[in-house]
Amino acid sequence: MKMNAFYAQSGGVTAVINASAAGVIETARRHKNKIGKVFAGRNGIIGALTEDLIDTSKESATAIAKLRHTPAGAFGSCRYKLKGLEENRAQYERLIEVFKAHDIGYFFYNGGGDSADTCLKVSGLSESLGYPLQAIHVPKTVDNDLPVTDCCPGFGSVAKYIAVSMREASFDVASMAKTSTKVFILEVMGRHAGWIAAAGGLAADRPGDLPIMILFPEVPFEKVAFLARVQALVKQYGYCSVVVSEGVRDSSGGFLADQGLRDAFGHAQLGGVAPVVAAVVKEGLALKYHWAVADYLQRSARHIASKTDVAQAYAVGKAAVELAVKGRNAVMPTIVRKSNKPYKWTVGVANLSDVANVEKKLPRDFITEDGYGITAKCRQYLSPLIQGEDYPPFGNGLPRYVTLKNTAVARKLAEFKV
Amino acid sequence: MKMNAFYAQSGGVTAVINASAAGVIETARRHKNKIGKVFAGRNGIIGALTEDLIDTSKESATAIAKLRHTPAGAFGSCRYKLKGLEENRAQYERLIEVFKAHDIGYFFYNGGGDSADTCLKVSGLSESLGYPLQAIHVPKTVDNDLPVTDCCPGFGSVAKYIAVSMREASFDVASMAKTSTKVFILEVMGRHAGWIAAAGGLAADRPGDLPIMILFPEVPFEKVAFLARVQALVKQYGYCSVVVSEGVRDSSGGFLADQGLRDAFGHAQLGGVAPVVAAVVKEGLALKYHWAVADYLQRSARHIASKTDVAQAYAVGKAAVELAVKGRNAVMPTIVRKSNKPYKWTVGVANLSDVANVEKKLPRDFITEDGYGITAKCRQYLSPLIQGEDYPPFGNGLPRYVTLKNTAVARKLAEFKV
Repeated sequence: MKMNAFYAQSGGVTAVINASAAGVIETARRHKNKIGKVFAGRNGIIGALTEDLIDTSKESATAIAKLRHTPAGAFGSCRYKLKGLEENRAQYERLIEVFKAHDIGYFFYNGGGDSADTCLKVSGLSESLGYPLQAIHVPKTVDNDLPVTDCCPGFGSVAKYIAVSMREASFDVASMAKTSTKVFILEVMGRHAGWIAAAGGLAADRPGDLPIMILFPEVPFEKVAFLARVQALVKQYGYCSVVVSEGVRDSSGGFLADQGLRDAFGHAQLGGVAPVVAAVVKEGLALKYHWAVADYLQRSARHIASKTDVAQAYAVGKAAVELAVKGRNAVMPTIVRKSNKPYKWTVGVANLSDVANVEKKLPRDFITEDGYGITAKCRQYLSPLIQGEDYPPFGNGLPRYVTLKNTAVARKLAEFKV
Repeated sequence: MKMNAFYAQSGGVTAVINASAAGVIETARRHKNKIGKVFAGRNGIIGALTEDLIDTSKESATAIAKLRHTPAGAFGSCRYKLKGLEENRAQYERLIEVFKAHDIGYFFYNGGGDSADTCLKVSGLSESLGYPLQAIHVPKTVDNDLPVTDCCPGFGSVAKYIAVSMREASFDVASMAKTSTKVFILEVMGRHAGWIAAAGGLAADRPGDLPIMILFPEVPFEKVAFLARVQALVKQYGYCSVVVSEGVRDSSGGFLADQGLRDAFGHAQLGGVAPVVAAVVKEGLALKYHWAVADYLQRSARHIASKTDVAQAYAVGKAAVELAVKGRNAVMPTIVRKSNKPYKWTVGVANLSDVANVEKKLPRDFITEDGYGITAKCRQYLSPLIQGEDYPPFGNGLPRYVTLKNTAVARKLAEFKV
């Protein structure tokens, strides 16, 4: 029986989540015997709850193909976690109601850990409500913290951006260090795990190549040891570059970024962790510093996306649909590493019950003993993920990203408040 | 008579200053009848004063060619302004002494406004001291504030980086705005003039294409009007993106960034202007925000350099040597715009006396009447400068930038303290 599909983007977007969308939609279009239309949720799962669906069949093949090189979420994403089944069964029932109304038999949810959990719940509910629905999770997260899969689509491109940026900024600081800036600090994402921070270590081809220090959220910040290391690097190289994760904590467990900043009028200020580390350098060593906060630039930088990451993002979207047409449910396509040199990977499959609510941490043996660098093992893991460039087309000096028409599907149900 | 040449990089480095170095060195190598060796100052003019010279003839043609795609200053730069002739004649005399000792007859100084002034002084002194020296200034500055020349090598690549980043981040915020971030703020360089900030306006193909606001250093920051505009954009588009120049001032003329920040212990903190604008948005509109500070990333991002900028940086280096062998002195090659559509440019020449101590400001008619955008005239000026991509070679996922051997020339003189 031919059913429509629902696809939604969830949580923070990435440079390649739209490549997964292209993988889902293009593959669904090749299975017209089993899959009717692909409806996308406008602003993620909220679009399903409010019956605000986008008819992707109104988009040309050319437009969908352009998703592969367009960053961010083409249908809108959302930060909206469905509550537990017991707490808010009405929401889950509403989802099923909307899916029924639009003949939706496939649920593709493109997100991270929370979304995997939601996807699993939806799958279970469909069973208990007797509505046939296959729920497939499409992995996506710059945090790289999903279990089972070797890596998470979205991460490789952030890692490449951070590695490239750290290399470039380090060359800059090296040129200026004689009379000016001696310490450069780049703040990167990763509140819970240091995967992104670790990527800063790739800026050096080998340890010691460039004087790079990493402040991981896994390693409590020790001011004295940190300053000693900065001083030693500046003495040896003339400068040093510091990658600091937004999630770095002090020895008492508080976020280093959370310094209770006040302006001259006593208003609370919104500092990042980079200026805090800069202040430590200034007070402790009186060295000239500069700092940068990459913020959204790092996860939207499609112009310097990893070719490997783009290919994997597309592949998991494609695999999700192939799993669906094979009748699978409550699963997630994974990236399986077959070999490191040459890097070979394939797509596997995980049960969502093994994925939901498990966070993959940066292993301790990926961090050097002194706590400021990455080990050879970490480098071996990370390096393949940033391989290859996949430049978007440019016109008039700028990348040509697509904006879809996002035509709404006619509503059939009463309003539902979220 | 065949003389050696001296080349130095001065002030803040750029993504393409090494392309100018390649232009100087490769062109000098093609004029062996007039130019002996090219000696580079290690860490800029300090290298000349301390007789710390680099023998670029020890570098292979391949290594020099790689400078064209390597960001930052390959020989080291410095922030060191020679004092006035009256105040410190000894420094100028020392320069001539070093040049004499190493048979240097050509002085190529690669920098911005201050360097142009130094170059002019050196040229005058050579005359008064009776030592034959041709001083040619090679323009470079991300600030784009040199007069006579249509634009300054280094600026086009920063402009492209900012335009691309703002487009990418805006796509990101647009995806998240329904439930999360509604205002994104990117801090960019440009303490005195809004050239770099203006480039953020290029992120939109045409006005209104993306909801982008620019805070120029030329326009005093008015909180009420700013908040009204943010609110209107968020209402219309669901979000807005703000480019803020580090040099933005409040209505009393003080830097907006200078808020007298204190941490919980009363220590002065090092804030940028982006978090200040974020705090204004938070307090005034209670909208969710994110902010980024590009800092050195914007000027070292050779991976996304403008092809036009790279070509112009190389061309002024080449032209400087050609002017020198033609016997010119106290001049600077310029970029002359021949037409906008299609964009055509050529290299001209300016007298240094017309360049030194003149700062080219962003014209008022480049800023829209409301003070938050760029006019069609500004767009017409900026757009050609970011045209074309000139990707560096990549290997192992990262750009392959060259690090030169930088072999020292044997010293002949007594030590000199700077």
